[in-house]
Amino acid sequence: MSSQPEISEAGQGEVVISVDAMGGDRGPSAVIAGIAKSARKNPDIRFILHGDADELRRLAAKRLYARYLDGRCEFRNAPDVVTMDDKPSQVMRRGQDTSMWSALESVRNKEATVAVSCGNTGALMALAMVRLRKLPGVNRPAIAVLWPSRNPQDFNVMLDVGADVRADAEDLLQYALMGASYARNGLALDRPRVGLLNVGTEEHKGRPEMRAAHDLIASTAQDSHFDFVGFVEGGDIPGDRADVIVTDGFTGNIALKTGEGTASLIGDLLREAFAYSPLSRIASVLALTSLRRLKKRIDPRRVNGGVFLGLNGTVVKSHGSADSTGVSAAVKLAFRLAQSGFSDRLAARVASAAEQAQDAAAAHANEDAAKDGTHA
Amino acid sequence: MSSQPEISEAGQGEVVISVDAMGGDRGPSAVIAGIAKSARKNPDIRFILHGDADELRRLAAKRLYARYLDGRCEFRNAPDVVTMDDKPSQVMRRGQDTSMWSALESVRNKEATVAVSCGNTGALMALAMVRLRKLPGVNRPAIAVLWPSRNPQDFNVMLDVGADVRADAEDLLQYALMGASYARNGLALDRPRVGLLNVGTEEHKGRPEMRAAHDLIASTAQDSHFDFVGFVEGGDIPGDRADVIVTDGFTGNIALKTGEGTASLIGDLLREAFAYSPLSRIASVLALTSLRRLKKRIDPRRVNGGVFLGLNGTVVKSHGSADSTGVSAAVKLAFRLAQSGFSDRLAARVASAAEQAQDAAAAHANEDAAKDGTHA
Repeated sequence: MSSQPEISEAGQGEVVISVDAMGGDRGPSAVIAGIAKSARKNPDIRFILHGDADELRRLAAKRLYARYLDGRCEFRNAPDVVTMDDKPSQVMRRGQDTSMWSALESVRNKEATVAVSCGNTGALMALAMVRLRKLPGVNRPAIAVLWPSRNPQDFNVMLDVGADVRADAEDLLQYALMGASYARNGLALDRPRVGLLNVGTEEHKGRPEMRAAHDLIASTAQDSHFDFVGFVEGGDIPGDRADVIVTDGFTGNIALKTGEGTASLIGDLLREAFAYSPLSRIASVLALTSLRRLKKRIDPRRVNGGVFLGLNGTVVKSHGSADSTGVSAAVKLAFRLAQSGFSDRLAARVASAAEQAQDAAAAHANEDAAKDGTHA
Repeated sequence: MSSQPEISEAGQGEVVISVDAMGGDRGPSAVIAGIAKSARKNPDIRFILHGDADELRRLAAKRLYARYLDGRCEFRNAPDVVTMDDKPSQVMRRGQDTSMWSALESVRNKEATVAVSCGNTGALMALAMVRLRKLPGVNRPAIAVLWPSRNPQDFNVMLDVGADVRADAEDLLQYALMGASYARNGLALDRPRVGLLNVGTEEHKGRPEMRAAHDLIASTAQDSHFDFVGFVEGGDIPGDRADVIVTDGFTGNIALKTGEGTASLIGDLLREAFAYSPLSRIASVLALTSLRRLKKRIDPRRVNGGVFLGLNGTVVKSHGSADSTGVSAAVKLAFRLAQSGFSDRLAARVASAAEQAQDAAAAHANEDAAKDGTHA
């Protein structure tokens, strides 16, 4: 295997994904099983795998995986692993030998278009900020997730779910731009509808900074090719009023985990209900296909992958507890985003909005100067 | 019927509940049907009904309801109705003739222990603040709800879900005290476990004001007879790590509506899944009892009723769209709180905590004075 991925005959359809194979709760075996799943389904995908290279080579050579992975993986040895307890600041100072650092480096060097990691979210975001750096015009990067919804595309985009605990009106506008871009490339929506999360839909409701963000996003929507539906409520996150839900990382993280916790409680109660009596156990056997269909639709493993937006390069954060199905879903998302040229489109979109804002500011300044002239 | 409810032979077991019979989405007929349901199950309950007295008398005299309601209702005529679109400020200035105002007046006059309304939440909170006034020592009243959970008591208490969009550390401490008191009286927990909602459980996580609230609540827990489990996450709201989840009204409202929206989406998808094929339709018939059992456990109508805490008197806010089952659930909750003497206990608890805080402040001041003396 060469140390540089070659341009294959498949041409620009081929995508190289950089994978941090360590750091997940289930270790590298779940990661290798997951990428093998993806490789089986998708001939246009190649991997650079970062971690204990001997261990990774051994796992990838297993009979079950070798026929899909053989010749499509490159291995980069990284002796250290970022654990879930490591503080982001420590990893930034002393993480050069970790698989996480190495995985980001492949994106930084343009060897790969997207990086995927199941590791510590805080450390991954901190490292990505220093190694990939923020896009020009972006103040706070955000983490976006796909949320099962009533919309025809089956999912909504929600951001920020935890990159930063604060966001001002300017940040929320950038989240709107980045979320709309993600919805265009990740969900194939031409003109996404963006909503701003609040405690009521009336314009006078909520905190004052929400009203400032409302007006700022409304004034940008037309030029940035999305529709702004105004304030939305918690019930609209899984609803069909908007395709993209914008909020700060504190609120978004709590909403995400509340939704996951509620879904998981209902799933367990459903199992209990079906185990209650002999008749209900018979019913559950007959109902199995129906329940499987439902589970497939809302299984968190199948929408596994928060995407870091606002960096030079795309990073997909998979759940720490992801099994092979979860890893494969994260890889699929990474592939789709890489193939659509998402990263470059997003950068162009943000740069153009930043220019518009500067033009608008300059125009205002000129107007003010003209007025001053009149009054002088 | 006398204009004052008499002390009945049932003695102190009897409870009078003041009901705003107008203002819900389904009008007074759903309210009368709901209180009839409660009256049928509970012989210790009496009502003062506020609204269009002729209409209410006519509804209560229906054959279906009369045998439960006859002789147990008093009617107060109030010609106006607060609509869902009315601004709280308008209602405060010009709402004297509304059923909502009249219903609160009966609690203010001590004719009833608790008021129940399906009306406009913002208007109800604003009116309750001016007519019942805040408890001494309470800065911001809060709205608490019961949330289906994995705990043995089947529900957790969560507050604030929308009385106020902001809360500082002192407010969050008061929410902890009030929520613990509610859990003691509403869920019969001797020593509730209180958690503070944040984006991570580590003590360094989240916004700075969260850390201040963390330390304040931790220092009060012992004397206030609850256990403080520290920071909890969104997934713990339906979980079993805490019985009471404390947060500001912005975050709490969004979490509540996200949870409701997620549960409702899953319910609809479940119905779809079972309607998919002939076999799954057969399965759904067999599964009906199981599904009903589940529905009963998490049916939002059966845990219907946000409770306003921190006022002189208790107010139960039922969902605007509540049907008779929902109204009956709200009345049941109101009855339980009234019978446990909740309002007085809560007042005593808050007063005692306020005293302790003053004592502590005075002690600190003395220490500081002593130190100053030493150093002088």
